[in-house]
Amino acid sequence: MNYFSKKYDNLTPYTPGEQPQDKKYIKLNTNESPFPPSPFSQRLVREYVGDIYLYSDPTVNKLVKVASEKFGVNEDEILFTNGSDEALYYAMLAFCDDSIGAAFPDVTYGFYKVLGDLTNTDCKEIPVKDDLSIDPDDYKNLNRTIFIANPNAQTGLYLTNDEIEDIVKNNKENVVIVDEAYIDFGNESAIPLTKKYENLLVTQTFSKSRSLAGGRLGFAIGNKSLINNLNTLKYSMNPYNVNTMTMYAGIGALIDEDYFKKNCETIVKSRKYLKENLENLGFEVTNSCSNFVLARTAKKSGSDLYKELKEKGILVRYLGDERIKDYVRITVGSKEQLDALLKAIGEIL
Amino acid sequence: MNYFSKKYDNLTPYTPGEQPQDKKYIKLNTNESPFPPSPFSQRLVREYVGDIYLYSDPTVNKLVKVASEKFGVNEDEILFTNGSDEALYYAMLAFCDDSIGAAFPDVTYGFYKVLGDLTNTDCKEIPVKDDLSIDPDDYKNLNRTIFIANPNAQTGLYLTNDEIEDIVKNNKENVVIVDEAYIDFGNESAIPLTKKYENLLVTQTFSKSRSLAGGRLGFAIGNKSLINNLNTLKYSMNPYNVNTMTMYAGIGALIDEDYFKKNCETIVKSRKYLKENLENLGFEVTNSCSNFVLARTAKKSGSDLYKELKEKGILVRYLGDERIKDYVRITVGSKEQLDALLKAIGEIL
Repeated sequence: MNYFSKKYDNLTPYTPGEQPQDKKYIKLNTNESPFPPSPFSQRLVREYVGDIYLYSDPTVNKLVKVASEKFGVNEDEILFTNGSDEALYYAMLAFCDDSIGAAFPDVTYGFYKVLGDLTNTDCKEIPVKDDLSIDPDDYKNLNRTIFIANPNAQTGLYLTNDEIEDIVKNNKENVVIVDEAYIDFGNESAIPLTKKYENLLVTQTFSKSRSLAGGRLGFAIGNKSLINNLNTLKYSMNPYNVNTMTMYAGIGALIDEDYFKKNCETIVKSRKYLKENLENLGFEVTNSCSNFVLARTAKKSGSDLYKELKEKGILVRYLGDERIKDYVRITVGSKEQLDALLKAIGEIL
Repeated sequence: MNYFSKKYDNLTPYTPGEQPQDKKYIKLNTNESPFPPSPFSQRLVREYVGDIYLYSDPTVNKLVKVASEKFGVNEDEILFTNGSDEALYYAMLAFCDDSIGAAFPDVTYGFYKVLGDLTNTDCKEIPVKDDLSIDPDDYKNLNRTIFIANPNAQTGLYLTNDEIEDIVKNNKENVVIVDEAYIDFGNESAIPLTKKYENLLVTQTFSKSRSLAGGRLGFAIGNKSLINNLNTLKYSMNPYNVNTMTMYAGIGALIDEDYFKKNCETIVKSRKYLKENLENLGFEVTNSCSNFVLARTAKKSGSDLYKELKEKGILVRYLGDERIKDYVRITVGSKEQLDALLKAIGEIL
């Protein structure tokens, strides 16, 4: 018998990037950091793992204190979540319903659409321009809750804070969620704008720049009232959503600023190296401001390139969405990983 | 401006037990284990924390393999979650909607009601008997999704597997969720019944008997089709819901069976000790089969006893719900903690 509520009849879940267990790949498919967690993160986890017979602090206060100072916000303006996906889910639940739909670009993080379908939210997907960039003018007075990844997922293209501000101030009746998963790779965060606009919610993740993808930590920063709304959902759904080990890993990652900065700088340099070398091989590469590039070549379809690289032990992401079906997305890995990739591509072409 | 969806106007979030940071209490308020995580759990976390720059495995396959063998089920009959609260939330979403309400006892884990309110599910709260026990006959052919904690939260009273089976087979049109958070303290699990009944979902947690409250790990076991439904929600909401450190902590806790068994046996003995001593002090104590007791005395109100114990540095839980407003709930802690508690109660009375 089928007991599943009929409200999910048309729900298609998100497909995470492959995490193959069969053999060791050079993994350039899920935008992880090539650098291990900060030594201080690791030390704190090892030191406190013995305490996890006690419940975690539902307010993760120690982490909130460090983070609020780091990001220049009050403690009641930040909420930590089990990965930023959870913050995005809370935001979709909190700020969308039967009468308030969502809007986001047609090329972006595929999870927004899944969350919209899950929550039965009407979603408007706004086409990006032919060059895959977002036109801020398309996002004014939409009467919808807006989700914008900045830099945008898949393309890596970045909107300036002036452009973000323009969107936020032209949607004062609705919340604008700016998903800054990739902000740390040479860009300016919109967090300071949360002081000025009560309808701006910024989310970030520790999965990319802070080397904690497997630790699962994200956060949202915004006006106290927005954070309070999200907390109402958290405490109605999973009060202890962030575990103690992850809390300490997060504290370590925030305090170890030098390690973080050095890694981000290295990735920005490697991104330039990857882009130039792909262009030398005849690729067209987006002007990515994130820790991945989106690239295509006339010589080989995206899906074939993905398959042939996989045969050579290198995983990249083939997304297959109509607008970017010719492209593959390649994580900016370590120098050694990128050289192996470039060598393999040279052989394939 | 208030951006929060009106659908949450009447939502009252769950209030977790106090986790005070101001001073060191003897904590007997949230039913944690008095024993640290298994040394093997700790060793695995320390060994693998360096890997968390990579995403966790969304299928947590290594843990599923160990658990499916331990619990005698197939790998597609088990789903791990970020605490069992998350499994309960998935179940409420999956198996309740506008046309299918929920039912649970009026004295039980308060989180069911919160989840019902959050998801706008019609909830029928079925009164327990005067002795606080559940009458299985009250749970037949309800045409609702049923949530039963066994042993029951707050009271610790246990239904036999025959009684559970009677409920399950008399609700074949609906899912029966048996929340076995407290099953390991001398009781028989209903997990084997999931082989026979496709409408039975059993949830368990690593927070009590397995000393991982702060690690956040729970699971659901049931027919492949039910687990598939829950997975559809997981992959639409938070595909990487269980982090790598928690996965390894869980593996350690399952493999270190001797440690687990010894701790459970100690707690069962300590429960008897606590009950007898409270009765000697004039308390009426439920016949708890869990790692807590529910106790009241004519000499002192529950709320006063809670307050006066807190002043003496001992935290117990005063729940305050109408049906149990005279009682306090006391976690079965270590022998030293219980002796300190009994001494303090002796002084207070």
